[in-house]
This record gives sequence, structure tokens and C-alpha cells, in this order.
Amino acid sequence: MKNLLIGQSGGPTAVINSSLAGAVSCGLNSSHFEKVFGTVNGVEGILKENFISMDKFRDEKLLNLLKQTPSSYLGSCRKKLPTLDENEQIYEEIFSIFEKHNIGTFAYIGGNDSMDTVLKLSKYAKEKNIDIKIAGIPKTIDNDLVLTDHTPGYGSAAKFIANSVKQLSMDSRVYDLKSVLVVEIMGRNAGWLTAAAALSNTENERFADIIALPETPFLPDSLISETEKILKEKNTVIIALSEGIKDKNGMYMGESINSLRAGQDSFNHAILGGVGRTVESLISASLGVKTRTVELSTLQRSASFAASSCDVEEAFRAGFFGVTFATEGKTGFMAGFKRISDQPYSMEIVPFDIEKVANFEKKMPAEMINGFDVTEKFINYAKPLIFGEPDISYTNGIIDFVIR
Amino acid sequence: MKNLLIGQSGGPTAVINSSLAGAVSCGLNSSHFEKVFGTVNGVEGILKENFISMDKFRDEKLLNLLKQTPSSYLGSCRKKLPTLDENEQIYEEIFSIFEKHNIGTFAYIGGNDSMDTVLKLSKYAKEKNIDIKIAGIPKTIDNDLVLTDHTPGYGSAAKFIANSVKQLSMDSRVYDLKSVLVVEIMGRNAGWLTAAAALSNTENERFADIIALPETPFLPDSLISETEKILKEKNTVIIALSEGIKDKNGMYMGESINSLRAGQDSFNHAILGGVGRTVESLISASLGVKTRTVELSTLQRSASFAASSCDVEEAFRAGFFGVTFATEGKTGFMAGFKRISDQPYSMEIVPFDIEKVANFEKKMPAEMINGFDVTEKFINYAKPLIFGEPDISYTNGIIDFVIR
Repeated sequence: MKNLLIGQSGGPTAVINSSLAGAVSCGLNSSHFEKVFGTVNGVEGILKENFISMDKFRDEKLLNLLKQTPSSYLGSCRKKLPTLDENEQIYEEIFSIFEKHNIGTFAYIGGNDSMDTVLKLSKYAKEKNIDIKIAGIPKTIDNDLVLTDHTPGYGSAAKFIANSVKQLSMDSRVYDLKSVLVVEIMGRNAGWLTAAAALSNTENERFADIIALPETPFLPDSLISETEKILKEKNTVIIALSEGIKDKNGMYMGESINSLRAGQDSFNHAILGGVGRTVESLISASLGVKTRTVELSTLQRSASFAASSCDVEEAFRAGFFGVTFATEGKTGFMAGFKRISDQPYSMEIVPFDIEKVANFEKKMPAEMINGFDVTEKFINYAKPLIFGEPDISYTNGIIDFVIR
Repeated sequence: MKNLLIGQSGGPTAVINSSLAGAVSCGLNSSHFEKVFGTVNGVEGILKENFISMDKFRDEKLLNLLKQTPSSYLGSCRKKLPTLDENEQIYEEIFSIFEKHNIGTFAYIGGNDSMDTVLKLSKYAKEKNIDIKIAGIPKTIDNDLVLTDHTPGYGSAAKFIANSVKQLSMDSRVYDLKSVLVVEIMGRNAGWLTAAAALSNTENERFADIIALPETPFLPDSLISETEKILKEKNTVIIALSEGIKDKNGMYMGESINSLRAGQDSFNHAILGGVGRTVESLISASLGVKTRTVELSTLQRSASFAASSCDVEEAFRAGFFGVTFATEGKTGFMAGFKRISDQPYSMEIVPFDIEKVANFEKKMPAEMINGFDVTEKFINYAKPLIFGEPDISYTNGIIDFVIR
């Protein structure tokens, strides 16, 4: 019997460990594997043979704790493998280490770069006729992987964003004066996360007044005039602003506006603060209203206390089925999601050919965007993904995590 | 029978509406009052006679929703009343409006400025022999009101901060490289909120490595060398940084460091970004490690989804007893907390003389601080205040609020 090796890579999410729990759970309970190992810091850990046993997760309480622990339990890396042509040696090295540790399946949980690793390793194994299955398990808050309906991690981040915008809007509207709040949201190229702010809106009440997405370049002036228009109807305008908004020339707005400015302070650092503060100063200068910026920061990808049950469970299933598919003989795939229906929401896990996934990027389609707003199509798509609140375990008011 | 008027003032908290719910609940169920009104935007609403009926909160479901709604349901204001000498007319105006609306008790929920209003109105009523009871109900995340053991709003903010720091620390430690995360926390003069980051620490694991408080002025160099020291032992250092940290001259560190810099950009604005980013750039320049700043922002005072049950319930009781004391004939007081014991935690609500509360500020005492850390005394004090997770109601993954 062979062993299972699992790794995590790329930026953390609130549920990447739930996928790890799913993969571990399948591995420990399958007659297919003798032992289940984790590689510390992804591919870097393979090269250093830094493997740890996952045996302690036979304890169901620990396994459940792993499901609610944000960020990568096994640690992460940002290593992108060279191509075979560039460096065949590294592939020989990796597979000899696999052989040495009797690895039969390597499951890699990660985003686009990690799927590229899955692609490269599985191609090498096929070419060299090595019987080691390489499985990809998707993970990214950005929701920018193709083929899969959505990615594990997106639902929890979307939920945190929508509820944060709602709470920040409540906070902003208390005084009897005009004000603007810019909420800067992650997503350098795709607007999925920023669009999620709209999930807080109802028919009677908008919390996210303006949704500014990287998919629709615009002039700063149009944002200012839209803000001004809404300020005539209500006291407080909330702008959900993607960090990746671009101007009409396709230039990142932050860079575009900052290039008009000094650009560097006297210590020779670039001016601090992201596009949110840049837009804040534009609006405050143009409209003369109190303007404030909130960057939702890395809490977007680590806020377990605001996670979506749907996301936590789906992430677990992606991990579980990713390993299951490998035991069925599949390799070179990503265990992605295929939506069966919106209402009632139903989804199945399928293995997508990794060649069709790796190195592509999924942006929001035009039919989900309507100027500074999203369409009903987006709402119907995203709404089920934030369903349900997991039963989080706390000790003395502090959320419980399992730490390596 | 007279009427009860309730107002809210100052910056919002996650539980100021729980105090409103308590005050309303007492008012609606007391034989003492005919009607219960809210004044919109605090004292400003009195002058405009902008009163609304609170009758809809006889519906228990709505009352419970009010308890979990962050920010001031009635709106807020920042108005500080002039002294009687400066402007007697405004007092005459307020009390004639009270008389016109048959107000027998005015309960004001707020922080220091609001307690000043309670002081001034109650003094005026006593001097003029007007039988209107003026009750103060404390509210502030800053925990800086004197006499009361702590303030409603502090526990939830402290809990959000401690859990955010723990989650951000998990997020920061995934890569195999040295890094520093600066978490900027509210509290311009008192370090209570920043100190709360330490509640995430356990005997085996520190999440908040350095606690930098406004009560202990320090040189930037000492922060850098402390960071450097810890970086030798572990990969990631988390600095819980008060927005109000001061240098040895008592100058706010942000201003002190920024005054060394250009100070103004080419648009003639002050350089954007708070003290966190200033410290970030210092550390990154001095130690050459990856450094990032997270500002916890106004989510600190509005994150209902991470509130403390202890705080929500105590806030309710403060509101309830604030009005109760008035029905017993008391006036010119603040309904504050008196701690009976730490373990098991027990607390009672008592009316403190408003003259001894208003316009004083409670900082952290020296015995709760130990350099860049807090002492056990602080932990024992703050620990019970973050206990318990309220059963929050959500619809389709979005937290439910009641909106005026």
C-alpha cells in the first residue's frame, strides 16, 4: 500500500484547512493508503522532505477544529515550478523523494499557481510512466479559477465582505451629515469579492451603494458624479471598491492617480496607502464631504468567525473527493464544482482536466455587471454560497484553532 | 403619568442598541411611564423635536433584533452643550420641549461628552427645581469612563480585536520567511482596546507579540529592537499598536515621525495613512523584513457578528437599570458597573454620581502594563468581559438588523 501526501499553497483562506480535513479524512479512512503525510510549506517541503504525519486527525474533535482553523495548517509557499525544459532535475528530485516515501498520491490544495504545479507534475509522471496520481484541490477567495462553478474560500470571504459592509454602513450613517465611506476590497483582476458587497442590499435598503469592479474601467469623474448623485438622496454613500479598479487606459487607478502626485515621500518610499485612500482624497477634495476609507485587509481571507457553512462543507468535500478521485485512478485533475441548480441550490464535485484549468483566469462576465452595480444574475449565483453559520467552538471568548 | 425620552450620542458600538433595548424594555413595561419616545440624533433631536415612538419594540422579536443591531438606532450627534453661563437659553428651550412632550425622564446613552450633557441637564433641573429625572447610561468601546468597572461596548470590541489578531496571526505565519504585521487599534489616549489583543495569547502560543500602548511613551528604536529580538525566535511578529502611541516627549508618534517627513503631498493633503503605516515603514526600513499594516477600522465598534454575550447582556441591563433608577426617583447619575468578583465573574449595576464621572478619563493603571506587554491583572480583569457568543440571527447568510 502506498502513502498519501497532501500540501497547501498560495494565499490562505478561511476554509483551506477544511479542504485539508476532507483530504485527510478520506486518506485516513481509505483502504487505499497506508499513511497520510502533510508537506510543510507546499512544494518547498517536498524538496526538504519536511513531511509530518496527519495521524492525529483520527481524533474527530481535532478534525473538526481543523475545519474551523483559517490559513494553511501545513504552511504555504509561493514557489512556481520551472518548466521541464528549464529544469528537469527538480522533477527528478521531487519524484525520487515521492518514491523514497512511497507516495502514491499527491494532493495539492491551492489556487492558480498550485494548479500549474499539479499540471506540471502530472504531465511529468505521465511522460515518465510513473504511477503517482497528482490531484488538484481548488482554493482561492478570488473565485478566479475557470471551469469550476466557484472556488472554496470564496463563499466565506464573500460573506465576511457583505456583512462587514452592512455593519460599516450602519456605523457610518449615525450622524446627521453627508459622508462617504470607501471600503477597499481584495481582487486585483477579478471583481467577484467586491461584487459580494451587493449581497447585503435588499429591495428596501442599499448598504453597498456603489460597486466599482476591475472588469469595468472608468474615469474617476464618473465615480465622483455617481457619488454626488446618491448623496442627494441619502446621507451616507458606501463605495465597495476593488483594489484592482482600472482607468480607461487599463492602468490600475491607484497607480494612475498616484503618478499625478509626488509619488515618493522624503524617505523615498512610495506614498503609503492603497487605491482606497487615493479615491478617498479625490472624493473629499471634489465633493467636500467627510470621507473615510476602510481596507478589509487579510481578515477577508482569515475571518473564521464569519465563515459560511456552505463554503466550509464544500471545501471539505472538495478535499475528500479530490483524494477519492485519485483512489479511483484519476490523475492530472482539479476537483471542482458543477452547479446543478440555483434554487434549491445543488452542486456536485467533478474532476476537471487540469490542462483546461491551470493558468487561466475567470473574471466576472458582462451579464453580471451593470455599471456601478451587479445584476440579478450575480446575486442568484452568489447568494447560496454564503448560506449558513458554522457552529464555531470558542474557549473563554477566543476562537479555537489547531496549530501545527 | 409622564413619558420617557431616550437618546443616543457619540461614536457607535456593537451594543449601544442593546442598552437602548434595555431602556425601552423597562420603559414600556413600567407603570411609571405613559409613552416611550426616542430622540433622533441625541440632543440635536430634542431641539428639533424630532421624537419617534418606541412602541414597535413591544414586539419581542424586534426587541431582540435591536439587541444585535450595531451602531445607534436613534442616530447620534457630537453636540456638547454650552455651560449655563454661556447660554442659558438653550437650557430653557430643552426643558420647555421636555415639558411640552410631558417628559418625566430623559435617559442618555453615550460616552464622556454625553455624560457631560447628563451632568449639565441634571444640574439645571435641580437649580430650577424642575422634576425631570436625567439618567446617564454608559457606552464606549474605549472603556475610559471612570468609576464604572468597565463600559458597555468594550467587551465586544475587545473580543473582536483579540479574535482578529489571532486570525490575522494565523494568516501571517504561513510562509517560511520573516515578517511583521502591525495591527492598528483604536484608542487615542487609553490602551484598553489595544491591550485586549493579549487576550488571544495562551501559555504555549503568543498571537499578539508586542502590545504598544499610549500609556507608556517609548522611543521608536525600542519598538524596533524588541521586534528584532522576537524575530530571532519566531518567523512572524504581530504588533498590536494603539493609534495613540506617544514618543518620550508625549507627542503622538504618528505626528512625531511624520513631522520628519515631507508632511504634505503635492495635492497639499497631509500624507495619508495612520500611525500603523508610519511604524510599518520604519520597521521595514530598519529591519528589512516584509511588513504589512492592518487597521481594524470601525469594524472594531460595529462587528455584531463577533460580539460578546456578556457585553450584550450587560449593555441591556445598564439601559434597563438606568431607567429603573430614575423611576425610583434618582437623577444626575450614570448607571455603571461594580465588580463583585473576577472568578466566578459577578457584577452589579449601581448609580454613580454624574459629577464624579463626567469629564474624567480612565487610562490603564500602571499595574496592568509591563513594557510591551500587559500583566496578569489586566487579563483577569478583561477575560470575563468577552465571554459567550450571542445567538445571532441571519437571513440567507446576512446578519439581521432593525433599521429606523
